[in-house]
Amino acid sequence: MRAVTFQSPEQVRVEEKAEPELVAGDDTIVQVEASGVCGSDLHIYHGRVPVEAGFTIGHEFVGTVLAAGEDVQRVAVGDRVVGCFHTACATCTPCLRGDYHRCANGQTFGHGSHLGNLQGAQAERLLVPRSNLTLRRVPDSVSSDVALFAGDVMGTGFHAIAHGGMRTGDTVAVLGLGPVGLCAVQSALAGGAVEVFAIDTVAERLAMAASFGATPLHLTEQDPKREVRAATGGAGVDLAVDAVGNPEPLALAISLARDAGTVSGIGAYSGRAEIPLGLAWLKGLDLRLGVANVIAHVDRVLALLEAGTLDPAPIVSNHMSLDDAAEAYGIFDRREALKIVLTP
Amino acid sequence: MRAVTFQSPEQVRVEEKAEPELVAGDDTIVQVEASGVCGSDLHIYHGRVPVEAGFTIGHEFVGTVLAAGEDVQRVAVGDRVVGCFHTACATCTPCLRGDYHRCANGQTFGHGSHLGNLQGAQAERLLVPRSNLTLRRVPDSVSSDVALFAGDVMGTGFHAIAHGGMRTGDTVAVLGLGPVGLCAVQSALAGGAVEVFAIDTVAERLAMAASFGATPLHLTEQDPKREVRAATGGAGVDLAVDAVGNPEPLALAISLARDAGTVSGIGAYSGRAEIPLGLAWLKGLDLRLGVANVIAHVDRVLALLEAGTLDPAPIVSNHMSLDDAAEAYGIFDRREALKIVLTP
Amino acid sequence: MRAVTFQSPEQVRVEEKAEPELVAGDDTIVQVEASGVCGSDLHIYHGRVPVEAGFTIGHEFVGTVLAAGEDVQRVAVGDRVVGCFHTACATCTPCLRGDYHRCANGQTFGHGSHLGNLQGAQAERLLVPRSNLTLRRVPDSVSSDVALFAGDVMGTGFHAIAHGGMRTGDTVAVLGLGPVGLCAVQSALAGGAVEVFAIDTVAERLAMAASFGATPLHLTEQDPKREVRAATGGAGVDLAVDAVGNPEPLALAISLARDAGTVSGIGAYSGRAEIPLGLAWLKGLDLRLGVANVIAHVDRVLALLEAGTLDPAPIVSNHMSLDDAAEAYGIFDRREALKIVLTP
Amino acid sequence: MRAVTFQSPEQVRVEEKAEPELVAGDDTIVQVEASGVCGSDLHIYHGRVPVEAGFTIGHEFVGTVLAAGEDVQRVAVGDRVVGCFHTACATCTPCLRGDYHRCANGQTFGHGSHLGNLQGAQAERLLVPRSNLTLRRVPDSVSSDVALFAGDVMGTGFHAIAHGGMRTGDTVAVLGLGPVGLCAVQSALAGGAVEVFAIDTVAERLAMAASFGATPLHLTEQDPKREVRAATGGAGVDLAVDAVGNPEPLALAISLARDAGTVSGIGAYSGRAEIPLGLAWLKGLDLRLGVANVIAHVDRVLALLEAGTLDPAPIVSNHMSLDDAAEAYGIFDRREALKIVLTP
Repeated sequence: MRAVTFQSPEQVRVEEKAEPELVAGDDTIVQVEASGVCGSDLHIYHGRVPVEAGFTIGHEFVGTVLAAGEDVQRVAVGDRVVGCFHTACATCTPCLRGDYHRCANGQTFGHGSHLGNLQGAQAERLLVPRSNLTLRRVPDSVSSDVALFAGDVMGTGFHAIAHGGMRTGDTVAVLGLGPVGLCAVQSALAGGAVEVFAIDTVAERLAMAASFGATPLHLTEQDPKREVRAATGGAGVDLAVDAVGNPEPLALAISLARDAGTVSGIGAYSGRAEIPLGLAWLKGLDLRLGVANVIAHVDRVLALLEAGTLDPAPIVSNHMSLDDAAEAYGIFDRREALKIVLTP
Repeated sequence: MRAVTFQSPEQVRVEEKAEPELVAGDDTIVQVEASGVCGSDLHIYHGRVPVEAGFTIGHEFVGTVLAAGEDVQRVAVGDRVVGCFHTACATCTPCLRGDYHRCANGQTFGHGSHLGNLQGAQAERLLVPRSNLTLRRVPDSVSSDVALFAGDVMGTGFHAIAHGGMRTGDTVAVLGLGPVGLCAVQSALAGGAVEVFAIDTVAERLAMAASFGATPLHLTEQDPKREVRAATGGAGVDLAVDAVGNPEPLALAISLARDAGTVSGIGAYSGRAEIPLGLAWLKGLDLRLGVANVIAHVDRVLALLEAGTLDPAPIVSNHMSLDDAAEAYGIFDRREALKIVLTP
Repeated sequence: MRAVTFQSPEQVRVEEKAEPELVAGDDTIVQVEASGVCGSDLHIYHGRVPVEAGFTIGHEFVGTVLAAGEDVQRVAVGDRVVGCFHTACATCTPCLRGDYHRCANGQTFGHGSHLGNLQGAQAERLLVPRSNLTLRRVPDSVSSDVALFAGDVMGTGFHAIAHGGMRTGDTVAVLGLGPVGLCAVQSALAGGAVEVFAIDTVAERLAMAASFGATPLHLTEQDPKREVRAATGGAGVDLAVDAVGNPEPLALAISLARDAGTVSGIGAYSGRAEIPLGLAWLKGLDLRLGVANVIAHVDRVLALLEAGTLDPAPIVSNHMSLDDAAEAYGIFDRREALKIVLTP
Repeated sequence: MRAVTFQSPEQVRVEEKAEPELVAGDDTIVQVEASGVCGSDLHIYHGRVPVEAGFTIGHEFVGTVLAAGEDVQRVAVGDRVVGCFHTACATCTPCLRGDYHRCANGQTFGHGSHLGNLQGAQAERLLVPRSNLTLRRVPDSVSSDVALFAGDVMGTGFHAIAHGGMRTGDTVAVLGLGPVGLCAVQSALAGGAVEVFAIDTVAERLAMAASFGATPLHLTEQDPKREVRAATGGAGVDLAVDAVGNPEPLALAISLARDAGTVSGIGAYSGRAEIPLGLAWLKGLDLRLGVANVIAHVDRVLALLEAGTLDPAPIVSNHMSLDDAAEAYGIFDRREALKIVLTP
């Protein structure tokens, strides 16, 4: 079968790979109908996240169950399903606490041997372990494009808001309007935020956030701190989300949050970084950091997609063939696309 | 000044009463622009809640601050304000925990000496103690009709959902579509419920709930248990709200809730009652009972009214003059009106 | 092998039964070293809970792993282990929420076909499905008698307190000082309750609760309501636990709880029952009902047993041979024993 | 009356100051029996926190109510009382949420004009505003030395644990065994921590923590990371408390916390600082920062002091006369005392 493989930095290639096969009782084989190219794929693309040459990449997928082991209960052969971007064992100590994103035995699709050695989803077919946790049936009324978001990008935006403890009637700021940030904007509005400040430098992304119902703020052409203060009676927002994953937006998030408020850091930070720790302390903030617990949210997110309360369809900017993956990565890397869906 | 007073069961009268006067430093005098007739006023009307003859009744009001004591900080003379239906001291042990509705020193407007001896709001003017907690400025864009709900009915509907722990993506059932139930329906949808089952026997109320986005279920012409089960894959709802306050709807709420779900009993129960305790235990339910903590919610509710996320305007069925209070109580008692607003 | 079987009401018998065998990949066979006779076994004994004649009963056990399927990771052959009283699948919707006690696929040991058709633990050996959730290694320093409580009785007492939301510094009342009530007393004190009122009619049980650090109150010779009020400045307790499971103690728990407090109903209620619903509503109580979520607590409980913070050893009143099971049930039924441990 | 005043860096002096007088209705005058010298007083002493020359310092006190305004309800003339280190208005938006430590109108005792211009407690008498929130009656059985901790140091240690979300059965690490760290150790054990790792470089402080029940770890002579990992099966602690307030202990706390665990930063950070943000993100940590919400905890802490569950008496190393304040500050600054109590 055909699959997109990492070769070397800035080099991905569609190759012929062996067909996946069922091994464990809760394995399934999924025929991929749509797979996404995600911001974290770019970390692999640039060699910042090490993946073996020839490894199939991609971790967002919707498809049809072709084969299922005897222990698979949640889905059945023939079902259209969406996968979460990683698996979880359900029985280790973190899983027992509900921290599926910190599973001691979890594997991430398409991230090479150091994250579980699980071949990726940018392929015609893939093996899905732990299917009872990893997969969900897609409601008929939900398109594959939309469903694709449930297992990663919308799950992450939703996590930023839910794990950030947002309550109906809160004010929220979202920094960075890539797909995750835009999904956080939608999630905040879905949960009854009274005002969501959406901050970025790209006019199109600001316009899209505004079309969702957010108040757009240009990072450099406006003064987000002053605007947020003015709109919140000087208090700041209840929840500030950094959807970028750099110290600068985190610092801005800290400055935008109200006293005893929350900052949700959903973007991937790395290494050591300087932050305004004194200000965060003075304000008495909670900084909630880390990758999203997508498995914990996926049923809820799918229900919201089915209800239409969440609708990421406008975020999909490009549909491309799996065969054009190299071009797709190039476009995405040059920020010429907001979200690319690949079709085998 | 003119004021609506209780005289004897089924007898209320507009009388001339003495003008209210400032006493404590955080007192205000409010010129009433709109006051509501509420379901709990009917308990007084029928003599079930004892109130002295000649006592001014009514506990929902919007008006303008005429005078304010020296310690009043939150509002100022000339402000259009909405009052909560009761006061709280802010410093007793329940208040320190945030349980303002259980304040050891709280007074309820218009409920006679046994609930704090505080004259009511169905009057031209009234004295408001503890103004820093009891009053809020009404945003300019919010009509007095709509603002009126913030201090009682919408605060109660909102409490049923918030205190019931509803999360974005949940399913909810609301039993009883009086004003409180309808506000609970709106609050659930505002917080991102994916489906709200609205249950009653009155076609108009079912239609109004449907117009808000709920799924109407006729209590007797349909089988709510079967409908809810079918729509939730057999599971039941995450949160079931009894907005009536009788054992029968509570029993139905218990039967509609999913395993380990929540039942929010916001209607006023009285005395001893038989309930399906075994079923509630088998399901592992939380039954969260009690009057709403309106003071804790009022800022959030006002923000949602200002944002338009909550909009109780359609619930107001009748505007009447304060002078026609006796007729208003009669109409309301005969259920010929959903919500009556009195104008002095 | 020998096993205790239910025959007919008031008739249990030690019979020769077939050896258990591994079937699924996460099955284990456990050689039982100690099994408990529990209050819920009496429901079976009296025929109130229907169990097939010849079915092996018992659901509390400590033993050694004799054989383990290939997917068993949490324990290994030769380990001394304690079992939870029921299994859970870890992947259904309730399990994903952490509600293992409401698992859609759970089985309870020794409760016949209507609770999962899983042979019981009052036997020489037993089959344990879902071992990765059901079993835990027992720390070396913890005796088998003590470990036995982790999977049921102490897990239940702990749940009453933890699920009841007790906070360090709270006051607590526990009604009913059987093994579960006594474990709830210990759990409350372990979590930093400043005063625990332990209520019963049996002098020995009151004395044992007092020896744990509780304030004993005789249900009929003292006036628990007056005593609790006097000791709490009139307020009542933050958390009242009904460890009996009848409407009367539940009513007393409601009367002992403070305003906006919590009542934890951990005993098994059945059918319809009359409760003081009006009082519960007036106080604004949360009634948290249902069987304990033992799997969610077991690691924490084992750690507390290992630390010695919890110590149920004094609760074990009788050690008997498995062969004397019939006598054991008789003694236990006549309340001549507090807790019986059977040794094969 | 005599009072300790700040003069210039490293210069404090006992001076004659005017007697305090009642102004507002909820003011009291307290005759001080004991006042503490606190780590935050050293920030003033060294000029890092700016205070006017001649301003009375000190913010921990126990004393007797000499006079009380007409609105004071919680305490009465003649009562022995303990004060919280700051006041709160109870009615601003943060107070309404229960965030008394972020009160928009709060004043801190003895911190000069920039923190509310409220004269301090290292004096014979002091004015206490907002007495209904600021003061609590001291139970008869609690010594003044011990009660003194309720309003600041133990309240802070307790906050580190309670706001850190510790649950009974958790493991905890506390970094920095000054008075606050030692109180955090006691609070963790009071709440049922199964193991508390107490980390410092001072042998006496390690020994004291061990005497409370903690596992002492020498910061440099041992390897705390390795020790904690070994003792927690490689996982790390559920909650790590930085009681120092510097980036280094915060970094260590981040490395000691388990995946999806919590770090409580109770020490006062300042300015910008470099932290291991990538590691905190990878682990999915919550960093809960800020000064303690002492008013929210004080009743609970007093109850625990009365019960003897918390007992900071061993932390008091020196009793000195108010007249010897200059010497006391010198000793404390040279770390020759753990906690000094001044007696007028």
